[in-house]
Amino acid sequence: MKTFVTLKEAFTLFEEEIKQKEETCLCPVEFGLGHRLAEDIYAPFPQPPFSKSAMDGFVFRKEDIGCVEPFPIQGALYAGDNATQLIEQKQCFKIMTGAKIPDNGAVVVQQEHCVVEENKVTVNIWPKRINICLKGEDFGQGELLLEKGTVLDYITLALLSSIGRTKIQIYKKPRIAVLVSGNEVWEPGKPLPEGKIYDSNAMMIKQRLLTLGYGAKTIKFLPDDPKEVATTLEEMSRCHDIIITTGGVSVGEKDIFHDALTFANAKKVFWKVALKPGTPAIFSMLNECPIISLSGNPFASSVTFEVLARRVLYCLTKDQRLLVETVRGTIKNGFKKTADKSRFIRAKWNGKEVEIPKGLHASYALKSMAGCNALAEIPASEEPLSESAEINVWLL
Amino acid sequence: MKTFVTLKEAFTLFEEEIKQKEETCLCPVEFGLGHRLAEDIYAPFPQPPFSKSAMDGFVFRKEDIGCVEPFPIQGALYAGDNATQLIEQKQCFKIMTGAKIPDNGAVVVQQEHCVVEENKVTVNIWPKRINICLKGEDFGQGELLLEKGTVLDYITLALLSSIGRTKIQIYKKPRIAVLVSGNEVWEPGKPLPEGKIYDSNAMMIKQRLLTLGYGAKTIKFLPDDPKEVATTLEEMSRCHDIIITTGGVSVGEKDIFHDALTFANAKKVFWKVALKPGTPAIFSMLNECPIISLSGNPFASSVTFEVLARRVLYCLTKDQRLLVETVRGTIKNGFKKTADKSRFIRAKWNGKEVEIPKGLHASYALKSMAGCNALAEIPASEEPLSESAEINVWLL
Repeated sequence: MKTFVTLKEAFTLFEEEIKQKEETCLCPVEFGLGHRLAEDIYAPFPQPPFSKSAMDGFVFRKEDIGCVEPFPIQGALYAGDNATQLIEQKQCFKIMTGAKIPDNGAVVVQQEHCVVEENKVTVNIWPKRINICLKGEDFGQGELLLEKGTVLDYITLALLSSIGRTKIQIYKKPRIAVLVSGNEVWEPGKPLPEGKIYDSNAMMIKQRLLTLGYGAKTIKFLPDDPKEVATTLEEMSRCHDIIITTGGVSVGEKDIFHDALTFANAKKVFWKVALKPGTPAIFSMLNECPIISLSGNPFASSVTFEVLARRVLYCLTKDQRLLVETVRGTIKNGFKKTADKSRFIRAKWNGKEVEIPKGLHASYALKSMAGCNALAEIPASEEPLSESAEINVWLL
Repeated sequence: MKTFVTLKEAFTLFEEEIKQKEETCLCPVEFGLGHRLAEDIYAPFPQPPFSKSAMDGFVFRKEDIGCVEPFPIQGALYAGDNATQLIEQKQCFKIMTGAKIPDNGAVVVQQEHCVVEENKVTVNIWPKRINICLKGEDFGQGELLLEKGTVLDYITLALLSSIGRTKIQIYKKPRIAVLVSGNEVWEPGKPLPEGKIYDSNAMMIKQRLLTLGYGAKTIKFLPDDPKEVATTLEEMSRCHDIIITTGGVSVGEKDIFHDALTFANAKKVFWKVALKPGTPAIFSMLNECPIISLSGNPFASSVTFEVLARRVLYCLTKDQRLLVETVRGTIKNGFKKTADKSRFIRAKWNGKEVEIPKGLHASYALKSMAGCNALAEIPASEEPLSESAEINVWLL
């Protein structure tokens, strides 16, 4: 097992140990939002599927364009009708927007430019445009519309509907287990005994996964008992693709994950990452299931969830949305404390600079995180950061 | 009824006609993501609820700080325990991170700075800090934690969990009906007859609502029959808070919404907005239910959904997320066509400039919208836009 790895080394170790899951399944288009397409989508027919009128008016043959005598109206064509009749010489059809153009129709004259008398049409102005949406104008039959790996949004789902698809192959989302350990953690809804605190990590990770387009299959609270935790890890690893744990990873007597992982026969890959808060994170593999074990303090688990757990999920899925977007920005009012390793601070990003909110910044304190949308990465340094200092900003 | 209103006039008319819905309901915290809080949340107890150790070590009384003789260890205190014993004079407790500090405990010395021999502790270095997370340090009892109207995210939900909440009052989301009209519209999943096209509007609007945190209660396809549409509008208006329709709003024989709204006795507020595509939008009220009727062409309905329907939903909910964020940006390569009214073009925004994608830009064409994240608003003008022109960019 490696100890005290850099973030970069941690990412490399994730890549080395974790195999991408490429299982796919069939999904109704209507439930496809946020899923990743597991097939290339080709157009099954041209779009539009037939040439259709772009406006309400009258449709004429090419040969009759410019003709000044009144045209007898053969009939009316409505959107949704199947126009099988041809236009007779020197005659026309009334036609509505979206209606199929007869096979020998060449131009639609909008109704405002025509005069109708006794079922005959005189054209006042022949248009410069044909006012027809031509068959295949948007895309041709067999054209590649969406590539494998596309994250489905409302437009791509509408596009799939427009070609008549009701089901698509998508990549299965990983089965995620969230295990929160610690005898002090108490489930909300029951009165709080002295010495206990209500859970926030399970709720935080569950909801954060949801905002990222993922869900937790299992959420469990674990006591500070390495044997029991080992049994749970063993069971969970067999029916999940990733296990995220919080608590019990530091150096104390109750930091039971070291023993639990040993009892479960997990392969410990690293312990401790050069970042703060949440340094003592552990990464291990058990039955091909990655286990990322984060600090129990709420802010520390939030930081390491973003920085480490999302990266583990990315290695499993190759879903680009899981990579945290980082930008360079200046830090408003600078930052006075120095640190021997990269330090992540809750922050508000306005597109240009980050501001560190007031309030308690302890790794257990949650309140001042409300309204934050970024983590400011204060680099390891012996000098405090000046007002104009540029730093990495991780956008949440 | 007003006709040809500006966008600003349309927004004012929405404000005048639509009453905000302020119904609330009780929601489990775990299902609160994206909902708006309908109550102020005050802390029911201080956080932390008790003073607790910030590290693994030994806890001492204030009077004994600096003492050089070995301290007998009275016992061990673990996270989750209720420490009821007091520290005896010149004694100490072993204590773990997160454990409750005895009432007379004043400082925790981390284990690395202590030597333990024969159940006695000698302190090598007395710390400068007390290493205790003090009761109420994050927030005090009765403190306002979250304000009414807050949109719940993973942090605020974790915060609610940390104070033991399992249920919260939220604003009820409006009941939305989406009605897609047109004899030519065909539901995907059935073979496509000649002259018909598969639906994309119902799918587009349904999924777009989902990405905005809303859902469609009802989705219906309607034929071009004003009497039947009138009956449906009447029924729907009684059990929905907003009706969004597509198709049938222009000036042709099959633009049946004018008659349908008359038959249903709806109050027509306006018809036609000075924007393109989707000019002939209709806004009406029926049984206190706003009806926003959009053009049927997919791109036109997408534009007017963003610009008009979202605004109607905003008036109902006052949910700030529904206001489309607009920024000023330059248009890459300029824009050559001029228009007599504001024109919205699908575009890609990179944070600095917008780029108009290649492909067909017809108001019925969907394909070139894939990958777009913005609408470029080309102002009404007789001059084409130069390369350095600055325009409004609506961020989707």
